[in-house]
Amino acid sequence: MASGGEEHGHEEHALQVFVFVIALLFAARLGGRLANRIKQPAVLGELLAGVAVGALGLLQGSFGNFVATTKSDPILHWVAMVGVILLLFKSGLEENIHEMKEVGGRATLVAVVGVVLPVAGGIAFTYFLLPGHSMLVYVFFGATLAATSVGITAAVFDNFKFKSTETRIVLGAAVVDDIIGLVILGVLSAVAQGGEVSGSFIAIAVVKAVGFLGVSILLGRLLAPSISKGFSRLHSGPEMKMAMALVFCGLYAYGAKVLAGLEPIVGAFAAGLVLDAVHFEKFEEPEIAKKLKLWAGLVEGKRVQKELELEAEHAREGHVEDLIEGMTKFFVPIFFIVTGMAVDLRVFKDPQVLLMAGGLTIVAFVGKYACGFAAGKGTNKSLVGFGMVPRGEVGLIFANLGKSYGVLNEKSFAIAVVVVIATTFIAPPLIAKAIRKSQNDELPETKRQGAKAAAVAE
Amino acid sequence: MASGGEEHGHEEHALQVFVFVIALLFAARLGGRLANRIKQPAVLGELLAGVAVGALGLLQGSFGNFVATTKSDPILHWVAMVGVILLLFKSGLEENIHEMKEVGGRATLVAVVGVVLPVAGGIAFTYFLLPGHSMLVYVFFGATLAATSVGITAAVFDNFKFKSTETRIVLGAAVVDDIIGLVILGVLSAVAQGGEVSGSFIAIAVVKAVGFLGVSILLGRLLAPSISKGFSRLHSGPEMKMAMALVFCGLYAYGAKVLAGLEPIVGAFAAGLVLDAVHFEKFEEPEIAKKLKLWAGLVEGKRVQKELELEAEHAREGHVEDLIEGMTKFFVPIFFIVTGMAVDLRVFKDPQVLLMAGGLTIVAFVGKYACGFAAGKGTNKSLVGFGMVPRGEVGLIFANLGKSYGVLNEKSFAIAVVVVIATTFIAPPLIAKAIRKSQNDELPETKRQGAKAAAVAE
Repeated sequence: MASGGEEHGHEEHALQVFVFVIALLFAARLGGRLANRIKQPAVLGELLAGVAVGALGLLQGSFGNFVATTKSDPILHWVAMVGVILLLFKSGLEENIHEMKEVGGRATLVAVVGVVLPVAGGIAFTYFLLPGHSMLVYVFFGATLAATSVGITAAVFDNFKFKSTETRIVLGAAVVDDIIGLVILGVLSAVAQGGEVSGSFIAIAVVKAVGFLGVSILLGRLLAPSISKGFSRLHSGPEMKMAMALVFCGLYAYGAKVLAGLEPIVGAFAAGLVLDAVHFEKFEEPEIAKKLKLWAGLVEGKRVQKELELEAEHAREGHVEDLIEGMTKFFVPIFFIVTGMAVDLRVFKDPQVLLMAGGLTIVAFVGKYACGFAAGKGTNKSLVGFGMVPRGEVGLIFANLGKSYGVLNEKSFAIAVVVVIATTFIAPPLIAKAIRKSQNDELPETKRQGAKAAAVAE
Repeated sequence: MASGGEEHGHEEHALQVFVFVIALLFAARLGGRLANRIKQPAVLGELLAGVAVGALGLLQGSFGNFVATTKSDPILHWVAMVGVILLLFKSGLEENIHEMKEVGGRATLVAVVGVVLPVAGGIAFTYFLLPGHSMLVYVFFGATLAATSVGITAAVFDNFKFKSTETRIVLGAAVVDDIIGLVILGVLSAVAQGGEVSGSFIAIAVVKAVGFLGVSILLGRLLAPSISKGFSRLHSGPEMKMAMALVFCGLYAYGAKVLAGLEPIVGAFAAGLVLDAVHFEKFEEPEIAKKLKLWAGLVEGKRVQKELELEAEHAREGHVEDLIEGMTKFFVPIFFIVTGMAVDLRVFKDPQVLLMAGGLTIVAFVGKYACGFAAGKGTNKSLVGFGMVPRGEVGLIFANLGKSYGVLNEKSFAIAVVVVIATTFIAPPLIAKAIRKSQNDELPETKRQGAKAAAVAE
């Protein structure tokens, strides 16, 4: 146990980070709640709470310094990463793999259109309004607008407990989107570093990505039944099942990154899709189930009896979502508040930057919104379009890459960052609006109440 | 959001740590389950699983290196720290502050005896069997045996869902124990660094520690009612309540460390004691509660009706424990497996070390066991005694300090570490045995079944 002393040495810093993380959780909840108060999705409030905290880091004095240094603490960013991985794992668990396959074609189309339009638009816009740069600069601007950050959209869907063809198309499109983004990223890195880009390079990247997803999902589906059986047999309460589900999620997330170069969240989503099929019987019969059975025996009246028995059955069935719920409640909000914290308000100081960014944001917005029309008839096209708008951390990866290769200068980088921020913050209210609309159109009175309730809950 | 790129850079390492932590969770669960199989508390299995993982770190090759480096990763140790803080917070929540006060006197006596005996014994033993060292060396050996690591004992109590006068005495004694240990630590540090130790120094340390606990608990108890009211009024589901409970826990843990120099877990325990009084009505009426009410209206027969109504009421009431349960299931096992991982099996190679350590372990064991007799009549003295035996991370802090000041040489340090390890691993089975015995003595047949069930559950 020789690390005891070491631990003791780091202890105070670790404690500070613990208190900071908890304070962030509280701030995120507060922001989320205020957002719900004004009928906005919690995630918007969580992002804005992050911006507020980030601003504290600009203050002079020891407190400002503490925030400024702690906001980039690796432990904090680890918690945020776990948060977004669990969020996409959850989204996968709540989706049905067969229904996903049904929308596969449309999702791919949406993704392709959703990449082509903003990239083309971005290149054209910057080419004409930021003249005198190399073509590579314009391409980087375009690329920054390419990829959707599905985390934001997934959180809004989750907030409204909303599931439909549209949610499936958006989530599916985001996966394809990530594959395309991966290829663009690879190509740009090669070019920026003065390398050659062969067709085989692109082919290999695509094959690896598609291959990984295909194999892992297929494999998972073959294993799912035996996993279910295993889960039911495990005589060890929910703890062991939770650990197994997490191992599954972790391996897929890691495999996506290491074997296929995909974002870990894509792997986590795939893991969720696979485990969605997994149900199991709880080992320890819950107290409530026992009581319900007892009552079923005692009461007169077949109908109530039947209901009591059904409820008892239901109480015995476990779902993977339930196993990780407590964890998601802690980790997920940290991801959004950390995303918000990363906003450096100083980039808004330069009016020219804002002007350019404003224009480019419109291009970025219209390009993704338009791809909603590729969703085909019978779907709420604005909902799909809005769902694809947020760029979040994915767009930043491009911008940062461009900066690190010296392709984007300080000003160009600032512009790209503002565009990413804008798309990330515009989207949630619009998605929420579209969801409410489609719910009010489609749902009978009773369900609509439920939807409203869900909207203000969380 | 300018940290996007950075994040991307650290991403692969963060992912590896994520997968490693999850693998550890799985290993801990496996160990815990096997331990339960042979009627041992889960924590013993989790500790041993940690030793096994630690041994993997001794392997040659990249895997061995990966384990060896990752086992000291700050993120992993942060997760472990959060785990033990949440564990003691939970223990506090499950204890009753009034009942704690009743045993206060006896707990203090147990703590004092439990420090004096092993310290005196340790000094005498090493003085005669390790001659030729300075007095400070012997004092350090004695000090290493002083403090109890309550985490281990708390986990065993938790495993058996066991609560009694004895658990209260042990938990209370561990708090007093920590105050005494704090003073000894301060004095030794001063002496080892050749400083003077004034009586005022000691007085200040004690006043700070006792003052912090007194004020924070008093303050918390005054606030508890209004917190309860606030919790029930919060129209924001359990998420916000969970965040508030964690803020409370975090501030107490941090305050204990920074304001009073106590272990953070002592602060977390105090926070739990205070919040134990907090109950609240769930904002969203759970589905099951609605149904139960409905059925209560439908069924004939007053008795079932009444029961259904009561159950519906019960389903509406929330407790702070429930809010953090999901988190504890993830964080707590990591603490124990990390504690086990810190065991460096190489210290067992030297037979002379083992011989000395064996003797000193007996002293360490008897010293703490004997303090159980200070618990007064009407209590299960062995249970209290065994509960005080484990030294865990607290003993290591002393050993490491002695080493870092050059007071303990490599061999002396190895001896001290082996003693700490031994006390930590002997205790859980003995505590479990004592609990089962007292349960079988006191409980009627039916309850005994329950106790057995609890024993194998988890």
